[in-house]
Amino acid sequence: MQSHPGKNRAVSLLSGGLDSSTMLALVLSKGYEVTALSFDYGQRHKKELESARKIADYYKVEHRIMKLDLRTIGGSALTDQIEVPDAPIDQIGKEIPMTYVPARNTILLSIALGLAEVIKADRIFIGANHLDYSGYPDCRPEYFESINKTFKLATKVGVEGGDIKVEAPLLKFTKADIVRIADELKVPLELTWSCYKGGEKACGTCDSCKLRLKGFMEAGIEDPIPYEHYPDFYVKNRKDKLVR
Amino acid sequence: MQSHPGKNRAVSLLSGGLDSSTMLALVLSKGYEVTALSFDYGQRHKKELESARKIADYYKVEHRIMKLDLRTIGGSALTDQIEVPDAPIDQIGKEIPMTYVPARNTILLSIALGLAEVIKADRIFIGANHLDYSGYPDCRPEYFESINKTFKLATKVGVEGGDIKVEAPLLKFTKADIVRIADELKVPLELTWSCYKGGEKACGTCDSCKLRLKGFMEAGIEDPIPYEHYPDFYVKNRKDKLVR
Repeated sequence: MQSHPGKNRAVSLLSGGLDSSTMLALVLSKGYEVTALSFDYGQRHKKELESARKIADYYKVEHRIMKLDLRTIGGSALTDQIEVPDAPIDQIGKEIPMTYVPARNTILLSIALGLAEVIKADRIFIGANHLDYSGYPDCRPEYFESINKTFKLATKVGVEGGDIKVEAPLLKFTKADIVRIADELKVPLELTWSCYKGGEKACGTCDSCKLRLKGFMEAGIEDPIPYEHYPDFYVKNRKDKLVR
Repeated sequence: MQSHPGKNRAVSLLSGGLDSSTMLALVLSKGYEVTALSFDYGQRHKKELESARKIADYYKVEHRIMKLDLRTIGGSALTDQIEVPDAPIDQIGKEIPMTYVPARNTILLSIALGLAEVIKADRIFIGANHLDYSGYPDCRPEYFESINKTFKLATKVGVEGGDIKVEAPLLKFTKADIVRIADELKVPLELTWSCYKGGEKACGTCDSCKLRLKGFMEAGIEDPIPYEHYPDFYVKNRKDKLVR
């Protein structure tokens, strides 16, 4: 592992989706030396992980992939063989969704904490955002405050007076904001993958596809990845609103 | 998964060592319906995991084994190829040892939290004890207080007013106390494994063997597992003190 003197190290969680890929670009733009951390957690498809690899390669950052078979726990549409939900766009985020993986962020952040301590990073970045935090308990600001207190007590670094801080820089941004930031930072969005299903093209019908397309629509930017099906709201607004 | 009405469910972390095996017996004696959770985390040997299996079988509890390759993180004598320490008995526990796995308890407890939420358990038991908590930051009482606050904020159950509480029932006990409890509860100690190395017999020279033997010695009970080598303090006290 190379260390660049004068640069602060960070662990940046990278799923390969729009949010975490944009966050990686943002973190790099702030001058951190980044190790990207992805999880091979028994996803129903590997497309997400391939995207994470491509993004890490693109940005030439160290990339670690942790195997973590969440199927041992069970309880989510993302890891079990239950139907991926397909809610109307205005209902998404209002309830805790079926795709909620119990304790997901706590598990991922804990492992990131271990890695951060080993590589002497002082920041852990997670791409949770505004839309998530109405629905997922572990995306709320009070959750992040609390986990930072716990992490300070949990580590050798913390005990010795140092700190490893979790930050969620996208927390207050909407999807449209994130698309705009990605555009600004020239993130290779064609390499990202957000769909819950693992088809050749993104499905365009799962919650994640719909939220992504809504974000692009509101930002006035065309999503570069191909879709199997475009939702009505996207088609309806396409001609008037999408400028490129 | 069978659910017994009227019984509270618990997740009990089980390494297969003296402490977690005794804790399992203790938790069962309190009437919990237990799922034991072990980790296959790239230990240098599998003996510990075999012991966990035998103990879970003995107590006829559901047993889940989560694969979690901590070598992706690195940084400990227990997972990397670095020398296992062999400190004098009176020095053990005074400093953070080489066998400290960064964020270990936080990682294990987070996964236990996910499982607890899925199986609707309201307690998570961890076998951390007195000797650990001088040396390991994530074994101190203030750490457990803090993680309980975080876990309440991290889960659907917590948000909906419920609770999943982490308890470390052995925290204030010495190894000798634990040996006495094990004896009282007739824990099959011959099935447990505490040695950091993976030989045919326990080595008797690593920190873990020494602490275990010291505990048996102080409790006045003979350790039923075979050792390659008995440390001087054990041999010296054996004739006078060990009664059975």
